[in-house]
Amino acid sequence: MGEDSKIGNYPFVVEPFHVDFTGKLTMGVLGNHLLNCAGFHATEKGFGIAQLNENHYTWVLSRLAIELDEFPLQYESFSIQTWVENVYKLFTDRNFSILNKDGKTIGYARSVWAMISTATRKPADLLSLHGGKIVDYVCDKDCPIEKPARIKVASKEPAGEYMAKYSDIDCNGHLNSIKYIEHILDLFPMEVFKTKIIRRFEMAYVAESYYGDKLTFFVDGKSENEYDIEVKKNDTEVVVRSKVIFG
Amino acid sequence: MGEDSKIGNYPFVVEPFHVDFTGKLTMGVLGNHLLNCAGFHATEKGFGIAQLNENHYTWVLSRLAIELDEFPLQYESFSIQTWVENVYKLFTDRNFSILNKDGKTIGYARSVWAMISTATRKPADLLSLHGGKIVDYVCDKDCPIEKPARIKVASKEPAGEYMAKYSDIDCNGHLNSIKYIEHILDLFPMEVFKTKIIRRFEMAYVAESYYGDKLTFFVDGKSENEYDIEVKKNDTEVVVRSKVIFG
Repeated sequence: MGEDSKIGNYPFVVEPFHVDFTGKLTMGVLGNHLLNCAGFHATEKGFGIAQLNENHYTWVLSRLAIELDEFPLQYESFSIQTWVENVYKLFTDRNFSILNKDGKTIGYARSVWAMISTATRKPADLLSLHGGKIVDYVCDKDCPIEKPARIKVASKEPAGEYMAKYSDIDCNGHLNSIKYIEHILDLFPMEVFKTKIIRRFEMAYVAESYYGDKLTFFVDGKSENEYDIEVKKNDTEVVVRSKVIFG
Repeated sequence: MGEDSKIGNYPFVVEPFHVDFTGKLTMGVLGNHLLNCAGFHATEKGFGIAQLNENHYTWVLSRLAIELDEFPLQYESFSIQTWVENVYKLFTDRNFSILNKDGKTIGYARSVWAMISTATRKPADLLSLHGGKIVDYVCDKDCPIEKPARIKVASKEPAGEYMAKYSDIDCNGHLNSIKYIEHILDLFPMEVFKTKIIRRFEMAYVAESYYGDKLTFFVDGKSENEYDIEVKKNDTEVVVRSKVIFG
């Protein structure tokens, strides 16, 4: 299989309600598009959620890191490419590039996924599924951004609190992966977004939260432009960690 | 011009992060799609935002009413048709039908729009724009749901409060029309959505709210299934009113 045939390519247009007050595509919507592209591509290769569910398996997103030099603007077309970088027994690395309306690469993203049994919630062995066919899709296209690193947050002083509501919850009954992105960015004052762009955004999905859960947000400012965030539910368990680097 | 040529027709697929915990397309995302279709159709006819902005005019949504018998489910395709029902001097009525994957009509929507000058914020005379050409697009397709009616809320007891954050704000610096829908539905407990669907949803956009505004929600329960909602900003001005009818 040629490397090009292993890359999925999906076109988009920036919708009016999908931009922030500066007219740039929001990080939440970009995250949504990236995860959709992962779904499209996996489905084309026979590893989609619908196909897996028949066998009681489902994909679970573990990490997401997005880095952009510039953001697509309202009404602009852009596209997302995605490919599988690595397949291990319990995880697979899926990468993305984001191309602007002229086809110039304006950013990259990395994601890490596990596959679990919907019956037992235990991880599946990716290398043995479909006769190990998933490794045929591994592609050596370059993704020149750092892998998501371990995030540790020291702060014990809440920077915000939020009760999970109807609109936050996905069809699995969990707070959806995109809503975490919105709630985390909502911790920052408007002023930040007036003068800076989000250069890098990382999410580590650690545990699930549910309707009615109280989410508490803790923030470590590592420098003027770098923030580590930890979200705990009901004052106990960590549900997600995140890093935001402005530039 | 034949009536069919006056109807825009736009296909969609229900994305995984666009459904609620029951797997149904959310009202917020449906509202977003409807408003996008209005934009697509207006643009095709020469009355799009981009074209108008050149002449310093923009569309302003005044009313939206959506009625559905059933909701498209995750991964299902569906389509939206839209057409102009009436054009008056200061307002135009644009209607919609929502068709399921089999092409069966599962709902309708009505919207009312004004056009304003971006310079003066004053309403424009729709009948005189482009030599009155907008009336050529008036179409007599049936829209068998009630027009949005006047909503009056008596309650003085807040049912909820929300501070407008970064993710709520659109490129005009206003809280975006779709976020109001989400915040209003978030007033209802999860139990309601477990056993009922939203049969009719109405929004009346009265004034703009901005980043940092405190929104207070007042709810009148008209019956077990019908609720009128008023949203005030900073304890003074009404920004939107809404009606939710469950079924």
